[in-house]
Amino acid sequence: MNGRTIGSFVPGLEGVVATMTRLSMVDGEAGRLVIAGFPVEELAGRATFEETLYLLWNDALPDAGQLARLKGDLAARRALPEATTDLLGAAAAEGVPVMDALRMAAGTLGAQEGDDRDDALRAVAAFPTVVAAYWRLSRGEDPIEPDPELPHAANYLHMLFGEVPSDERARALETYLVAACDHGMNSSTFAARVIVSTRSDFVSAVTGAVGALKGPLHGGAPGPALDMVFEIGKAERAEPYLREKLESGGRLMGFGHRIYKARDPRADVLAEAAGRLYAADADKDLYKLAIAVERTAVRLLAEYKPGRDLYTNVEYYTALVLHGLGLPSELFTPTFTASRVVGWTAHCFEQRELDRIIRPQSEYVGAQDRAWVPLGER
Amino acid sequence: MNGRTIGSFVPGLEGVVATMTRLSMVDGEAGRLVIAGFPVEELAGRATFEETLYLLWNDALPDAGQLARLKGDLAARRALPEATTDLLGAAAAEGVPVMDALRMAAGTLGAQEGDDRDDALRAVAAFPTVVAAYWRLSRGEDPIEPDPELPHAANYLHMLFGEVPSDERARALETYLVAACDHGMNSSTFAARVIVSTRSDFVSAVTGAVGALKGPLHGGAPGPALDMVFEIGKAERAEPYLREKLESGGRLMGFGHRIYKARDPRADVLAEAAGRLYAADADKDLYKLAIAVERTAVRLLAEYKPGRDLYTNVEYYTALVLHGLGLPSELFTPTFTASRVVGWTAHCFEQRELDRIIRPQSEYVGAQDRAWVPLGER
Repeated sequence: MNGRTIGSFVPGLEGVVATMTRLSMVDGEAGRLVIAGFPVEELAGRATFEETLYLLWNDALPDAGQLARLKGDLAARRALPEATTDLLGAAAAEGVPVMDALRMAAGTLGAQEGDDRDDALRAVAAFPTVVAAYWRLSRGEDPIEPDPELPHAANYLHMLFGEVPSDERARALETYLVAACDHGMNSSTFAARVIVSTRSDFVSAVTGAVGALKGPLHGGAPGPALDMVFEIGKAERAEPYLREKLESGGRLMGFGHRIYKARDPRADVLAEAAGRLYAADADKDLYKLAIAVERTAVRLLAEYKPGRDLYTNVEYYTALVLHGLGLPSELFTPTFTASRVVGWTAHCFEQRELDRIIRPQSEYVGAQDRAWVPLGER
Repeated sequence: MNGRTIGSFVPGLEGVVATMTRLSMVDGEAGRLVIAGFPVEELAGRATFEETLYLLWNDALPDAGQLARLKGDLAARRALPEATTDLLGAAAAEGVPVMDALRMAAGTLGAQEGDDRDDALRAVAAFPTVVAAYWRLSRGEDPIEPDPELPHAANYLHMLFGEVPSDERARALETYLVAACDHGMNSSTFAARVIVSTRSDFVSAVTGAVGALKGPLHGGAPGPALDMVFEIGKAERAEPYLREKLESGGRLMGFGHRIYKARDPRADVLAEAAGRLYAADADKDLYKLAIAVERTAVRLLAEYKPGRDLYTNVEYYTALVLHGLGLPSELFTPTFTASRVVGWTAHCFEQRELDRIIRPQSEYVGAQDRAWVPLGER
């Protein structure tokens, strides 16, 4: 109980340690991310989505039997309840944004009161189904049923595009889903822990977390990074374009991170995944262009903003990978959510074990002794 | 920025001031609750629900024109979208608990992206409609349409029971809705602020808050207090019943509060409201019994737990008021939610103005250098 602060206001709770965790460690100075004991470079590109989920929930990699059981448990929970599909249909008719539709649907996924593992499995299993179904519904297409024979990542692409993806495509998505699954104490993860700390259920927690993640101040939402690459169009235009942007005080999307003062380690992992994906299956010129833009941007950032240590962040290569898979940019944040729900549920299990309500204080700065004035005298 | 804690773990964030607020102040030592400048005794019993909502949103009581506009804005947003009613019907068919149904429905109430006031109005206006509609659906009855001519509290009773309530009944409910509308930095209010702090929307925030409030560690959920009164049955049985309970180490529901070391000021307000309600419209014997049980319990608590200062809390008289209105105990927490959404939305406006992300830290306590082991070798 050392270090308890009484009565001092900490804006944004910055620097306050709200919890211990064994799920992930972010060392921004060293550019290091550890996920459940593994440096992200060791895990992403090797672990399947299901292995990673097992690892975060159990603090150990699964053996063959444990993995088979988890895969079966997930695959059995991919399909949406009819009421959820109806709700998505109504939302699609109104043009509700994808993240709002995902939050609505997330709230309907609970089943038996009090079975945390079942709730967690449902959320992790069904988020891709919700996103894929909603995307198709909003384009006037029928949703594609999940295929229980396919692994989690491959099935997501199958539900989006209606065909079983190549190994390279499934692997690229899986690398992203693993790399982004947890990242210290961000706002959405914290929201999930606050909610479950009242002994509420996991569905309530992940629904709240989706709501937090959709806010534009929440990190990890890729999208605009790639727009800049498209605008640049050709490698030789990178330098004049970026110089003009920097000289007019513009911000380069996809570069710099609040925490990382070195290259975001997830950017390395995803750059490699992008390289393999684009070599096998996508637009090689775009990949080369993105590499050229990155090199130029990092060089110019060092010139224009010396000492700031601005490097490529995770959004840059996330956008490249997801675009290479054929995902429109409106699905980037929802796909991020389908990854981060792994971390949310793992944090919920941790919080459940801790079983301590999260309840800070507020300091009252308003009036204190107002007297009632009847309506006629106001 | 004084007093910022770096790197020290604060379990449950206890004692950490997460925000400044002008919405409410809880002084547990003095048994004092200030709501937007008014001692709760000054406000509850005088202010209407709509005046209180205006006060919390605007830090001032409305004049006649402002009040008329707010009443109209609320009344126009009471009806549920068809998709929400369909969702409630499906949930009722599955026997989903009321608070889960309310959380599901809350998530569907958003409209135009980015219009905070509209979202806040929809949530406040529609929560009673959701609760009443769901309660009737789960009993196989048709929901009753909201009546735009009735004030907020009277309309809630109308939608539950199908008749325009007497002034005494509407006033008793209103006193409760006002007294419970905000109470410092509890977990649900904090969850709402965390979510909106990412610049997410108010519907996401109140949906997360409903999820937090439904957890049994969240205070303010009445229910079991009244069961004890029913079990006691007659005033002369109070002392032997309570002595036996206290001697066997049992806890008296409805007495004692984590914060209040004096009588909860809301208990006074609600005891008065209960007195008027039961005198006019309900079972006078039950009211007398509850008063007798309270007196005996407080006396025996002082005897068995000297120095603990255990008094009647808000749940005790809340349960009495809501029971006197004919609400079944499964609607007590949902009705609390219909009150607290006033505070949640007001905190969301405050947080929006502050515009600072709430993002504490975590301390990593897991392994750091695990090496990958292929599946076949595990």
